[in-house]
Amino acid sequence: MQLMEMFGTSGGFTSKKIYEGYQILKEEFTSDETTFLSFPADIISTGTRGIINQLVKNKLVDVIITTNGTLDHDIARVYTDYYAGTFNFGDEKLKDMNINRLGNVFVPDESYGVIIEEKLMPMIEELYSKKKEWAPVDLIREVGLKLNNENSILYNAAKNGIPVFVPGITDGSFGSQLWSFYEMHHDFRINLLEDEHRLSDIVFDAKKTGALMIGGGISKHHTIWWNQFRDGLNEAVYITTAQEYDGSLSGAKLEEAITWKKVRKDAKFVNIYGDATAILPIMVAPFL
Amino acid sequence: MQLMEMFGTSGGFTSKKIYEGYQILKEEFTSDETTFLSFPADIISTGTRGIINQLVKNKLVDVIITTNGTLDHDIARVYTDYYAGTFNFGDEKLKDMNINRLGNVFVPDESYGVIIEEKLMPMIEELYSKKKEWAPVDLIREVGLKLNNENSILYNAAKNGIPVFVPGITDGSFGSQLWSFYEMHHDFRINLLEDEHRLSDIVFDAKKTGALMIGGGISKHHTIWWNQFRDGLNEAVYITTAQEYDGSLSGAKLEEAITWKKVRKDAKFVNIYGDATAILPIMVAPFL
Amino acid sequence: MQLMEMFGTSGGFTSKKIYEGYQILKEEFTSDETTFLSFPADIISTGTRGIINQLVKNKLVDVIITTNGTLDHDIARVYTDYYAGTFNFGDEKLKDMNINRLGNVFVPDESYGVIIEEKLMPMIEELYSKKKEWAPVDLIREVGLKLNNENSILYNAAKNGIPVFVPGITDGSFGSQLWSFYEMHHDFRINLLEDEHRLSDIVFDAKKTGALMIGGGISKHHTIWWNQFRDGLNEAVYITTAQEYDGSLSGAKLEEAITWKKVRKDAKFVNIYGDATAILPIMVAPFL
Amino acid sequence: MQLMEMFGTSGGFTSKKIYEGYQILKEEFTSDETTFLSFPADIISTGTRGIINQLVKNKLVDVIITTNGTLDHDIARVYTDYYAGTFNFGDEKLKDMNINRLGNVFVPDESYGVIIEEKLMPMIEELYSKKKEWAPVDLIREVGLKLNNENSILYNAAKNGIPVFVPGITDGSFGSQLWSFYEMHHDFRINLLEDEHRLSDIVFDAKKTGALMIGGGISKHHTIWWNQFRDGLNEAVYITTAQEYDGSLSGAKLEEAITWKKVRKDAKFVNIYGDATAILPIMVAPFL
Ligand SMILES: NC(=O)c1ccc[n+]([C@@H]2O[C@H](COP(=O)([O-])OP(=O)(O)OC[C@H]3O[C@@H](n4cnc5c(N)ncnc54)[C@H](O)[C@@H]3O)[C@@H](O)[C@H]2O)c1
Ligand SMILES: NC(=O)c1ccc[n+]([C@@H]2O[C@H](COP(=O)([O-])OP(=O)(O)OC[C@H]3O[C@@H](n4cnc5c(N)ncnc54)[C@H](O)[C@@H]3O)[C@@H](O)[C@H]2O)c1
Repeated sequence: MQLMEMFGTSGGFTSKKIYEGYQILKEEFTSDETTFLSFPADIISTGTRGIINQLVKNKLVDVIITTNGTLDHDIARVYTDYYAGTFNFGDEKLKDMNINRLGNVFVPDESYGVIIEEKLMPMIEELYSKKKEWAPVDLIREVGLKLNNENSILYNAAKNGIPVFVPGITDGSFGSQLWSFYEMHHDFRINLLEDEHRLSDIVFDAKKTGALMIGGGISKHHTIWWNQFRDGLNEAVYITTAQEYDGSLSGAKLEEAITWKKVRKDAKFVNIYGDATAILPIMVAPFL
Repeated sequence: MQLMEMFGTSGGFTSKKIYEGYQILKEEFTSDETTFLSFPADIISTGTRGIINQLVKNKLVDVIITTNGTLDHDIARVYTDYYAGTFNFGDEKLKDMNINRLGNVFVPDESYGVIIEEKLMPMIEELYSKKKEWAPVDLIREVGLKLNNENSILYNAAKNGIPVFVPGITDGSFGSQLWSFYEMHHDFRINLLEDEHRLSDIVFDAKKTGALMIGGGISKHHTIWWNQFRDGLNEAVYITTAQEYDGSLSGAKLEEAITWKKVRKDAKFVNIYGDATAILPIMVAPFL
Repeated sequence: MQLMEMFGTSGGFTSKKIYEGYQILKEEFTSDETTFLSFPADIISTGTRGIINQLVKNKLVDVIITTNGTLDHDIARVYTDYYAGTFNFGDEKLKDMNINRLGNVFVPDESYGVIIEEKLMPMIEELYSKKKEWAPVDLIREVGLKLNNENSILYNAAKNGIPVFVPGITDGSFGSQLWSFYEMHHDFRINLLEDEHRLSDIVFDAKKTGALMIGGGISKHHTIWWNQFRDGLNEAVYITTAQEYDGSLSGAKLEEAITWKKVRKDAKFVNIYGDATAILPIMVAPFL
Repeated sequence: MQLMEMFGTSGGFTSKKIYEGYQILKEEFTSDETTFLSFPADIISTGTRGIINQLVKNKLVDVIITTNGTLDHDIARVYTDYYAGTFNFGDEKLKDMNINRLGNVFVPDESYGVIIEEKLMPMIEELYSKKKEWAPVDLIREVGLKLNNENSILYNAAKNGIPVFVPGITDGSFGSQLWSFYEMHHDFRINLLEDEHRLSDIVFDAKKTGALMIGGGISKHHTIWWNQFRDGLNEAVYITTAQEYDGSLSGAKLEEAITWKKVRKDAKFVNIYGDATAILPIMVAPFL
């Protein structure tokens, strides 16, 4: 791809790093190493959902770790639309119009909570009728299959045997449906520790591991946390907007992760700063 | 307090906002509203742990929502010490010295994973012998009591009846001990949905609610998410380093939360940008 | 261009804004409006110099406002090379190797101050022999012509009649050569106010004005400052990494500039956040 | 001061650095080294003007390097008031009210350009009647004396023999008055190179040098640039919101400045991240 070549030869602060990231991903995507993909929920409300969906469809990644909001947006967008808005439309006005703002994405009430409840509840009902206790990773797979939609990350992940882990499973609309169901059926159970068991199997079985981590927070940490049990990732690309000075996990560079044995000393890795909705499409375009 | 008065009268970008935050907290802390305190784990590795501990000891807050790392650091520091380091000491060298870096805090291996395992496992063992299934919030309370240490946030929270919620309970060393115990005792259960039930009780019983949210991520979102079920927070102070342009939940201003009904239209609120280890002590000093 | 179309149709936080920027530039570049290009010096040490050079070569812009470092890098790179380095190579070690670091660009001593002095001094000497007082904009034009190199922004600007204004002309190596020459020839004069006179002519003669502003600081401010005298820019694209919360001119959004009449109320404009070495090539590629 | 002690003993990311900065300033302020103070214009529109004024009044600093906007705000506020506003009041509405927004500071038209023109023009007239050519540093001193106001930084600097350098002297209202006067009196001259001569004297005469640099841009760079001619600053405190990843001079850490010989290898220095309107008052309070 032309742009990538230019980035490779011409140097630059972030442009050079995007090229480095692309080189590392080439190894992650083509070798037999187990590749983790982690990302925050916000980007799934945008066109970047399509990019991630293609990574999943093409089986370029092996494990997904993300947050509840990813489930929400992926499900909602199977059935409804979000709209292109702006960052500075009056928020009180939007509230009165029953439109929720997510950055510059406008999400009508009926495209989020309402539709998620309407579609998810019957699915949970049916799954509960089979088994009263579910590991989140299994529940998500079943929901993915039921979505039965080519644009859905959950659907393609399920079809391709890519497990989707959400360690903070209760934090969002998907989680609220689970809670709501629990209020009505007090023997319904989510077995979060079983997800950890599955992750341990993946991590201990892997020959080598690599990661494409988009954004910080719980999804990044859970990815590097588990890789620490195998002395660290062999390769890692981290795209983030977070900075180091505040001591946050999100802002921590992969260099810091070396001290925790979450990334290997001899690993190939790069920290790329900027909004993933612009950087990710450029960096993975050559693979799609 | 003199500094706060100066910030109040002299204007300034962030200084003025710190004063506004102080004014809002005055209402939150002195009225009978239910006050949520949310924060990320990193600051608990620093002296800010002491500040938060005092808020808890003085019962200025009613509910805590935080992440796994808070449990890790609060427990580890009851028994061991962390050290003042620097942001740019060679990370590979640190690794070889078995020292983990957290920003400019140095954490020896034996002050983290090792000690947490040593101290926590017997506690879990004992709690398991009483019942096989635990809501995280209850488990954390019991652990808090066992810590029996005046410097511990968990201890003081437990003593003062302040529930500590950790929606991403598996993501860290505390979570890994739970998983590890689960591998040995397959009937051990964490009932995360029960935590949500408790949160629903708190939220639906509250006359008014306010929040002091430090940092973004899952702990911020879980705070505003639940408050959405009562049409939004009445008052809110948000301290963060995250910016709005990346569309992240962490960077989202409280203005955006109004559109989601997570903060009320007529709420008093302020977004304060900067590292909480500097801002929080200033802002809450007058209350301690 | 395919990527741009994708950004246009698929939404996203920054990706959508890059598309908006591209649309605005289309108008700026194809209409008969006077187009200002402002940028900071750092990017001229990278491959982005080539992109800007092409904008200048193709006469897509009419006026340049930049900082001293741009002169330094543009001149130095005509005669010597910079090297691709990394952000975290030990700085003390680099110092001992006589290599200066500029982000992840490595600049050997002899590729900067040394070469600039060697090449620039004879030029100043010669220009001084013609006239003792120079408007910086004229001096820069003459130097540009003498560089006589297709890769040089200054050369192409001079050839194409695009004035290059540097309001902070003394701040860097170019400026130090001027000062140094002044120490030896006390009747040598830089007439900075004459530059302002030229800018006033441009601004008052323009039918419409537009701007592509990369980065903040003095080059951004001087661009919007002068446009205030004609009630504001008609169109503006601002790429920056600076944030609003610190009250800085660099972080100020173009919305704020409306209050100062530096941008018109009905102007088309967009603020794009991120490193220009990645964003600019994408956004202007379709024009090159 | 109690807060500072707490920051000293309790660690923390930024809080610890504020303490380090305070320690370095103690040396800078009490030793006989030449202390540079650099800062951007924005903070002079806030109460931080008062803090800086006290540093100047108490002769804690020896040289000031700043930007044109500092002159504008310092002069305007001698005669008029600015108002406490908010970051998100509608900008188009403000424009229609003839109020300029600077972050969360509201500046009525008549409190800025109008008053600066009214007060400054007669001063320039008078100074011009004495001499037709002025070094900016001398002109600023004379204006400072004429302001004759205890709250004015320029006045106290003039009184205390602290030179105020503004390398980008034309970029703002002060500069526009100079230009405007030049249009009417074509033999009026600003001799910017003479300022450089004065700076060279200061730098070459100093035994040791230290700096308190607030913010980046031209004022930071001019400070470290000149100190490079004496092999670097002996001590340096840098407060900024800018980050390193974009390759900018503003974001460059003092570590990078070591490679350029702008800061000595054995210098004591610290980079502190955050808004100076909150950090500076805390850090210098013990000296005032
Ligand atoms: N954002 C949503 O739409 C949404 C919806 C429902 C629930 N939630 C919940 O909120 C909680 C917090 O959200 P989160 O953990 O997904 O992420 P987050 O939004 O808190 O982001 C975490 C960090 O990732 C980085 N980041 C985020 N967006 C980025 C981007 N576009 N480009 C580069 N870096 C980026 C930022 O530095 C940020 O601090 C989660 O529990 C989630 O389930 C979020
Ligand atoms: N800002 C104004 O009020 C104003 C008024 C007239 C003219 N101008 C002109 O605009 C040009 C650019 O302004 P500048 O060079 O003074 O600075 P700037 O606002 O461009 O700031 C430079 C950098 O300093 C840092 N910074 C700014 N404010 C900060 C704060 N509160 N805390 C911590 N860091 C901060 C930021 O990282 C920023 O990128 C100058 O030529 C100036 O004369 C500005």
